[in-house]
Order: sequence, then structure tokens, then C-alpha cells
Amino acid sequence: MKIYSAPFVLTMNESNEVIESGGIVVDQNIIDVGSTDSLKQHYPDAEIISFDNHVLMPGLINTHMHSGFLRGTAEGLKLWDWLRLFIDPMHRVLQPKDAEIASWLCYGEGILSGTTTFVDMWRFLDGSARAAEQLGNRAVLVPYVGEHPDYNYFETLDTNEALIDNWLGKANGRIMPWVGMEHLFYFTEDACKRAIDMANRYRVGLHTHVGESQAEVREIAQRYGLRPVHAMDKLGFLDLDTVLFAHCVWLDEAEISLMANRSIGVAHNPTSNLKLASGIAPVTRMLKAGVHVGIGCDGEKENNNLDLFEEMKFAGLVAKHRETDATAGDAWDVLRMATIDGSRAIGLGDEIGSIEAGKKADIIAVRTDTPRTTPLMKGDLFNLHYNLVYAVQGGDVDWVMCDGNELVRDKKLTNANMDDIRHEVQNCAEQLFERRADWLNRNQQEVDNVQFSDD
Amino acid sequence: MKIYSAPFVLTMNESNEVIESGGIVVDQNIIDVGSTDSLKQHYPDAEIISFDNHVLMPGLINTHMHSGFLRGTAEGLKLWDWLRLFIDPMHRVLQPKDAEIASWLCYGEGILSGTTTFVDMWRFLDGSARAAEQLGNRAVLVPYVGEHPDYNYFETLDTNEALIDNWLGKANGRIMPWVGMEHLFYFTEDACKRAIDMANRYRVGLHTHVGESQAEVREIAQRYGLRPVHAMDKLGFLDLDTVLFAHCVWLDEAEISLMANRSIGVAHNPTSNLKLASGIAPVTRMLKAGVHVGIGCDGEKENNNLDLFEEMKFAGLVAKHRETDATAGDAWDVLRMATIDGSRAIGLGDEIGSIEAGKKADIIAVRTDTPRTTPLMKGDLFNLHYNLVYAVQGGDVDWVMCDGNELVRDKKLTNANMDDIRHEVQNCAEQLFERRADWLNRNQQEVDNVQFSDD
Repeated sequence: MKIYSAPFVLTMNESNEVIESGGIVVDQNIIDVGSTDSLKQHYPDAEIISFDNHVLMPGLINTHMHSGFLRGTAEGLKLWDWLRLFIDPMHRVLQPKDAEIASWLCYGEGILSGTTTFVDMWRFLDGSARAAEQLGNRAVLVPYVGEHPDYNYFETLDTNEALIDNWLGKANGRIMPWVGMEHLFYFTEDACKRAIDMANRYRVGLHTHVGESQAEVREIAQRYGLRPVHAMDKLGFLDLDTVLFAHCVWLDEAEISLMANRSIGVAHNPTSNLKLASGIAPVTRMLKAGVHVGIGCDGEKENNNLDLFEEMKFAGLVAKHRETDATAGDAWDVLRMATIDGSRAIGLGDEIGSIEAGKKADIIAVRTDTPRTTPLMKGDLFNLHYNLVYAVQGGDVDWVMCDGNELVRDKKLTNANMDDIRHEVQNCAEQLFERRADWLNRNQQEVDNVQFSDD
Repeated sequence: MKIYSAPFVLTMNESNEVIESGGIVVDQNIIDVGSTDSLKQHYPDAEIISFDNHVLMPGLINTHMHSGFLRGTAEGLKLWDWLRLFIDPMHRVLQPKDAEIASWLCYGEGILSGTTTFVDMWRFLDGSARAAEQLGNRAVLVPYVGEHPDYNYFETLDTNEALIDNWLGKANGRIMPWVGMEHLFYFTEDACKRAIDMANRYRVGLHTHVGESQAEVREIAQRYGLRPVHAMDKLGFLDLDTVLFAHCVWLDEAEISLMANRSIGVAHNPTSNLKLASGIAPVTRMLKAGVHVGIGCDGEKENNNLDLFEEMKFAGLVAKHRETDATAGDAWDVLRMATIDGSRAIGLGDEIGSIEAGKKADIIAVRTDTPRTTPLMKGDLFNLHYNLVYAVQGGDVDWVMCDGNELVRDKKLTNANMDDIRHEVQNCAEQLFERRADWLNRNQQEVDNVQFSDD
């Protein structure tokens, strides 16, 4: 049993309590939280680990990302050209070993900047499960499933079911395979039924992209005569226990209200939505309606880094811009999105997302002795939460614990060597890009003929 | 004479040339640039300093900031309450020693994240000049001048002139006092004339805030019957050799065209403009018209950090959002704004902003061996510039040179101790906030009566 103590413990409990000179008692899980002095009295045999210039806070929850290594190689493009020339051809030549090393890189990058839980929509996820198992993070693993004649080069519901069979409950529950759907457009109606049945049968969540672009809203209206969330409801997706929609940029009030009533989780990806010029999600309205909104960084190809501290800043800023109101994007709301609200969005609100007795020990230590956290005020001008959202960057994370195990010590991964990972990614990327170029050369006509609803 | 070599030299010359296995010959100024091999042959006696996993690039230029230490203590407020309750009362109780230590902190933070030139609008700037002189950065020092009966608690044109007399040309030209005007609203017409005369007489630049909010545009229309830039023209400001306008969020096409024709520089502050819900400046249109647009981070109280790498990312993203076009906010354009275009915006295009023979040796080394710069591709998929704008953060800067002198080595300031600076800021901040609270208690009526044009 150990007591981790620091000048500040940011609990993210219901009252956003911050304990000064606080401590966290950990024995695999969180046993107790309080002032360090009182904890020392109650647990006299516990070893004390002191962080002298840090805040201890919950590990961050990235509710939407895609492992990958296309970073910076498919930029400044219209969505149509981006998918046609770079992304879909990549999926056609991606191999399991590429997919696995991509997850090592992305989880590693995220862990080093304070993320302990990743919702990863990706391919060949057995490799990603191995990466998470060994690196030590939590991973909700969601295959990019396509079950449609036009999209036959992704994962399938068969490979999705095999992933669930292989990994459900593994690594002390840190590995959480879900049912994935790249997008409703990639599924036949029969496949929708089978996906819903699979999620029910295994009691796992389902994750997909919804309402990312205006073109999508138009296309759904043509096909179903409905707005996207209502189409998803008609197909039965909203009846599932745990459903997470990524993006939700283009929702109307009725959709927001429906999502709140049905406890649908949302992954808000402000950087990606700006970068692909999709728009800004109505997060202020969603939060007001009671929707559980988490934050996601989307993929390295859309962002192009995986730093949830940076993403929190964007989340706050785009809220202010969207509402034309400097009081929007409240720092506490943003911190809750990256922690407790994110945990609720993925159905794990009782287990992670806050520092409270009985919860999993997912904890990070963030420096508070940098220029960008100076001054640090107490009392009326308390500013730690503002500093965390608007000033701190992922590089300020010194130490990371997940499920009671240290994943980062002194800014270094404890369970892997990042230089080795980077070198393997570099090799795999170079080979993947060569295979993709070959594929494009051999399939020029197919690429030119691809139909896509956006312009 | 030394040759600084690295896998990449990002020159930011007219063709955005990147030299692989490149070197920079420095002997106070930049003597030559080229492949390291050829430079070794031409300068056989030069000492070689090798950066093995870095890109060497021009020191970044922050075209608009305010030293300060209110970070995170005046947040989530309407502009009106923000000024009335926090900012203006701060100005009333600010003392020279507070102002000086604020500049040590802010220049230090900026230098550590790769900025070598700061345009700083601030108070009691003799202290800021001392900070820049000793830290080693370049500083365009612009007093917050108010010359109006309603704003008699700022700097004056008299103190501005004294600053110029004291510091013009000092520190090998690194200290550049300019004429400042907080805002046209803070100046009588006579004061405008005197400011213009002073800038002409000393051959220095003039800097002010223009077109930040819609409320300002309405107020200027009421007072002058003109748009803000046309009002500035009518008053004679556009005739000056070097004029820099901060923000320029609300400009029409005629104003953009006028600014391009008169070579008016712009400081674009995307984070601040989002944070105060001011809007997004029409940078794509300004660049197309030929306006020299630089990037600024605004103050620590608006941002809340001073990392121009982060600011570049915001600049790219808000351009895409504003134009609803993922191809906007081109990474090369953004890099040029933070370097060579920024130098032109402040009239220093011949001296800094690119790595070319004859220019000042303002150079930074940025790591390229991090997860967020992986993979690093050459050839058709070259992605260094995308990584720099969208993935890299200020913490990736390892080494900084300004005017041929090392300011940062291994991520540490060479000329000051940041911990000492931080502790002094903390003390000064606590005392300043106490004095401000006293002042507010004693002057409640005055605060309540302040007239302001915004709501």
C-alpha cells in the first residue's frame, strides 16, 4: 500500500474538489483520498511517494482516436481526395504488423502526455490489444468494420466477433473489445442488425462516426428521410446499453434531446473537426441537455498529435467561438469532459475518470513549476484548473499510473523503449507507402471511379 | 566561426528551401548556408556543432504579446467585466518591479519554446529592456500609452519618448523601442499627431490594436463615420514607415486592400481572438492581398501560454474553419507567418526571419525524434513542415541562438535561472493582487461608473 502525495490532488469528483497537500492511497485500486497528514495517520504502514511540484489528477480519457502513422503525409486536402488517394488505399495495403506498431506508437505518445484510456477504432486489433496489454493502458478496441459490397477492405463483423472472443476481460479488464461500425454508409441493414445483436450478446459497447459533415446529413436524409441520430434510432442502435458517437458536429435540438434521453455518449474532436473543415460541435448545448461528452483527438492523420491537454484547450476555445461568448467553454466543464464525463460516455463512470475511493488507480502527475503554470494562486484567484486547460501541455506530465501500475516515470515509458518503437514505425511507414503507391498504380481506374457523396 | 549542422535546415527563404544534411556558418551573423559537406570544404577551420536529431530553423517572431502574470486569474468573463474588474485595476496598481519580472518570465517562457523576437506592449519598459538585454532576445518595446483624460493610468507619450531616448539601438540593436498606442479610443487627436511625429522623428515603428471586436467597429463608425483602418488612415497613421496592427479580426475588403497597398503589418492572434470570443481574422484574404501577417500569442492572460508552435497550429486550424476549406491554412504559409512574414510585418525583413547569408543568427533547434514527429518522410510525402505546424510543441525546442549568442542549451536558459524568476513572479503576483483588491475596495464607485462601449 502506498500514499501518493502532492501539493494538489484534483479529484474530479462531483464537486470538482481539489485537495491541497493531498494524498491518494493506492493498493491496486484507490483505497482512500484526503489530506496527506490525515492519510498518514490512518495508514501508518503505507509507503509515502511525494510529488513536490505537481498536481495529481485522473488519467485522461481519449474517447476517439485511430492508431496510425500517416501523420503529416495526407494534408491540406478536400475530404474526397484525402479518402480516395490516401486513406482508403492505405487500408487496402495495411498489414497486421503495421497496425500493431501503429498502436504501440500512438498509445505510447498518448500515455506520455497523460492519457490512460484510449477508444481506438483501428484494424487488426489483436496487435493493438497486445500493445495495450504490455504498455499498461486501458483500450476500448473498436474495429473499423465495413459490411457492404463497396467497402470490403476493412474489418468484418466476423473478425470483430473473433476479437471479442479473444480479448474480452483480458489484462484485468483493461482490454475492452467493442463492436465497431466505420459509418452507417459502410453497413447493410442486415449488418446493422447483426452488430446490434453482437453488442447485446457480449454486453459490450458500440462505436461509430455520426454527424461529422453536412454532406453526411444530406445523404442520410436522402436514404432514410431522417436526421442521422434519428436514423440510428430507427435502426435500433440507440437501444443498446453503451453507444458512443464520434463527432456529432451537425445535430439539431431534437437529436441532442434524444441522445440525452437515451444516454448516448459523444466523442468531441475539436482539432479534427477544424482541420477537415467539418465545423464545431454544439458542445455547450449538449452539456446543457445532459449528454455525456468526452474529448477525442481523432487520428494522428487528422490532428496531428495525440495530446489531450492541447485538445482540452481547443475544446474550450471552440466553445467560446461557437457561442460568441467568452464565458462558454468553462475550464471545469472541459476538465470533466477529459476525465469523468469521458468515462461516462464510454460506460465506465463507476470505474475511472475521477480520484475517489473504490475507483481504479488511473492517476497522472503534472508539473506545476513551469513558466506556463506561474503564478499558481490559491483562494479567490485559484487558477490551477485554468492553467491545466489553457496553459499546460502534455510534455508537463512526469508520471503516469494505470490500474495501479506505473506506466511513465520521469517522462519515460516504463514498459517499452520509444526509440525502438519509432524506428520500427519509420520502417513500416516507408514500406506501407511503397505498397500503397504500387496499389494506386495498378488500380488507377478503380480510384477514379469511386463514388463519394461529398464534393 | 562555427558550422551548425543538422539533418534538416529549414531556411524559410523565398522558395521555402529545406536543406537535408545542412549547415549554417555563423560568425556573429549568418555567413553561409548549404550542405554540411560543402560548407566543411569551404570553411575548413570552422568548428562543427552537430545536432543529430533536429531541424535548424529561424527563431520564431511573436508579433504581439503583453508581458504580465495574470495567467488564469481573470477567466471566463465578458470583455467588459474582464477589463473593469481585473485588467484596468491591475494597471492602476502595477509597479515597475512587477513589470520587469513579468518580462523576465514571459521572454523566458517564449525563448524556451523557440521565440527569439517579441513585440511586447507593456508598462515601465525600462525593466523589460533590461530583461531582454540580459536574456539575449530581441524585443520591440511598445508602451501601453493612454493620452486621454479617461485613461490616465497608463504610460504617456512622455514616458514613451524617454524609453526611446534610453534604449534606441542598444544591445547591438536587439532592443527596439517603438511608439505605442493602447487603442485609438485612448488617444486625443492631438496625441495622435504627437505620436506620429515621434515615430517619424526617431524613425521607429508604431503599434496598436485595430479591429479586434465588432463593438469597436461600431464605435469607430459613430465617432469617425469610417471603418477602423480608414479612420487610422485619415488620422495619418498609415503614412508612417512601419506600422503594426494587432488583431484585425473585423476588416472589410477595402481595408485589406488599403493595408496591402500601404504595407501595414498585421499581428494575427488566433488563440486570443477565440478566447475572448472576438472572432477569426480573415488571414487567407489578407495573405492573398499581400498583407504581411505575423503571428502573436497576445498576453499570458488571454492565451494562456506563450508557445508559438501551438499558436501556429491554431492559425492553421482557424483558417480552415473560417474558409470552410481544409486546403486553407497551408502549413508553409503558417510557417512563413511565424518567421519571414512576421519579420516583414515589423519592418525587419532584411535582418531576421530566415536563414540566409547576411542575416542575423537567430536560429533554433527543434527535435525530430519524438513520437509526434514520427514518421519523418522525404520525397513526395515530405512532412517536416506539417509536423512543425500541427504536431510539434514548444517543449521540443532544445537549443536557441539569438544574434549569434546561445540563449538556450539542453532546454535551459543560459542567462537566467527560471526557478528564481518564477519565485519572484509568484511573490510579486500575490502582492499585486492584494494591492488591486485594496484599490477595488476603495474605488468601488469609480469601477461601477466606468463607461464602456461593449456589452
